[in-house]
Amino acid sequence: MTQTAAKKPDASPLDELSALLDSDMRAVNAMILARMDSPVKLIPQLASYLIAAGGKRVRPLLTLATTAMYEGEMTRAHRLAASVEFIHTATLLHDDVVDESEQRRGQDAANLVFGNQASVLVGDFLFSRAFQLMTEDGSLDVLRILSDASAIIAQGEVMQLTTANNLGTTMDDYIEVIKAKTAALFAAACEVGPVIAGVSEKDARAMAAYGMNIGIAFQIADDALDYIAAREDLGKTIGDDFREGKMTAPVLFALQNANDEERAFWTRTMSNREINNDDFDRARTLIAKSGALDQCFDLAYSYRDKAIEMLHQAPAGKMRDILEALTDYMINRKS
Amino acid sequence: MTQTAAKKPDASPLDELSALLDSDMRAVNAMILARMDSPVKLIPQLASYLIAAGGKRVRPLLTLATTAMYEGEMTRAHRLAASVEFIHTATLLHDDVVDESEQRRGQDAANLVFGNQASVLVGDFLFSRAFQLMTEDGSLDVLRILSDASAIIAQGEVMQLTTANNLGTTMDDYIEVIKAKTAALFAAACEVGPVIAGVSEKDARAMAAYGMNIGIAFQIADDALDYIAAREDLGKTIGDDFREGKMTAPVLFALQNANDEERAFWTRTMSNREINNDDFDRARTLIAKSGALDQCFDLAYSYRDKAIEMLHQAPAGKMRDILEALTDYMINRKS
Repeated sequence: MTQTAAKKPDASPLDELSALLDSDMRAVNAMILARMDSPVKLIPQLASYLIAAGGKRVRPLLTLATTAMYEGEMTRAHRLAASVEFIHTATLLHDDVVDESEQRRGQDAANLVFGNQASVLVGDFLFSRAFQLMTEDGSLDVLRILSDASAIIAQGEVMQLTTANNLGTTMDDYIEVIKAKTAALFAAACEVGPVIAGVSEKDARAMAAYGMNIGIAFQIADDALDYIAAREDLGKTIGDDFREGKMTAPVLFALQNANDEERAFWTRTMSNREINNDDFDRARTLIAKSGALDQCFDLAYSYRDKAIEMLHQAPAGKMRDILEALTDYMINRKS
Repeated sequence: MTQTAAKKPDASPLDELSALLDSDMRAVNAMILARMDSPVKLIPQLASYLIAAGGKRVRPLLTLATTAMYEGEMTRAHRLAASVEFIHTATLLHDDVVDESEQRRGQDAANLVFGNQASVLVGDFLFSRAFQLMTEDGSLDVLRILSDASAIIAQGEVMQLTTANNLGTTMDDYIEVIKAKTAALFAAACEVGPVIAGVSEKDARAMAAYGMNIGIAFQIADDALDYIAAREDLGKTIGDDFREGKMTAPVLFALQNANDEERAFWTRTMSNREINNDDFDRARTLIAKSGALDQCFDLAYSYRDKAIEMLHQAPAGKMRDILEALTDYMINRKS
């Protein structure tokens, strides 16, 4: 088997996308840097602490890729991609305060370094900046899509708070939470580009559905990883969800498969929050042996399939092929 | 002296404004209630806890009054007034988390009742709702004005964090902070109505300047009240600024007037945060005897004068008269 020079044998679809959209991504990064600046220096310090730590820029890449696929105006896409990334960064800052996170992207979480106060306020600043950028672009459709997504994200985060520690949480509740807190922004990131490219409403909705479904698949896999990944690979501590009593897919599947003694374990740890030192290991063992992990990945792949079905409404070509390959990558990227 | 039946002898300009705009304010309140609703019930519970506790609705009243004064479309003003109030409510929720407040509007602060997590997220939700409302209205000018204001508010709050406990803070720094964290939203609240009424840029800017100047006057007076008001009158604890080491006008004036021993007191309490039980009483005494309170109110009245000058560019009439009377009320409302 031969490989072309352009494509490294181990390049991920995300690497391919980054290479293909390299000059656009540079423009987006330059815009992010310029627009997170402020005379109040703590703002760029805190924002760049998080943004410079990396992150794969999946959401802005999706905005660029879907715009390019529909031959939209790339200079407009740069601004929208930066908006999407600012909304994402703002939610990360607020999430870390809410979750009392200790690690993010392989380093101490911003709230630990700069304090909760600054994290809340810089999140608000970036959120405002996102709306300033959209306003400069001037599309009311884009403003509608991203203000709707922002409200839904906050709603999903609150719903997650109210389902935590509740063993009565259903799989439907869980899917509703992750659709809102995670997938809605993927959906918006994939829809705004086609919308400014002037595609039909049907095509724009198909791209939103592609984003929604890869977002759901991604979050299910991410939640499974919190019970399997090595800390170094994930760039954050594992077991956070367990300690916070978040009712995620691996726990819900394990509960479905549990006998009485195992159910008592989950009630004590997740519901009553009485957690001993070796309980997380026990939780991992239960999840692994019950088949819950396989069920998580099966579920994630079913959303991957829906994503591909939606994607096939878009014009065939190299960009679509990469976006199709990306659906698997969203699930496997860290395992 | 006779009084007309319509006007109670002790009616404040805010009461007059509320009476004059009664049906509009009802529409705004109905919209606020409808749009803070969510299937995730913790959201309306928390939001209504704060919103139902009262607050004088000064900002939405200003939006209605300035729109009416320029004969703008009141149905549009309702939506914008609700937007302004949502942004204000979101910032209150986030401020109380940031300041670790214990009281707001005469009751326990929302973060104490519902937790910091929910306060941050419901704030994000209301902020998103504000942008949804503006998008529905469809004016990009309004979106620009209010997204700019939101970014400036967050910037001002971060600046306040960085000046706290810093005895080198100048009066200019302080004015910059309160312009951003408080007055920018008053300015925006007064500008959006005239803008949708289609006034000239010069007239719109004059109304923004009116709002900016009453906002500054209001905040200076509010900061003075933190060293004089009875807790019952203000609906919150006094002394919060002192305990947090916020460098506000009364402290800055007292510092300007301080001898060495007094300066040592301010250094120990504000800068080093070594605060004993009777230090707040000492602070109040120093501020009162140094003339700092008079200086605060003189400064506030100088901004009141600028506000009136700007207001006089607007068409003469009953609404303008009330808005003029309101400038004093913003300073004296609680003392």
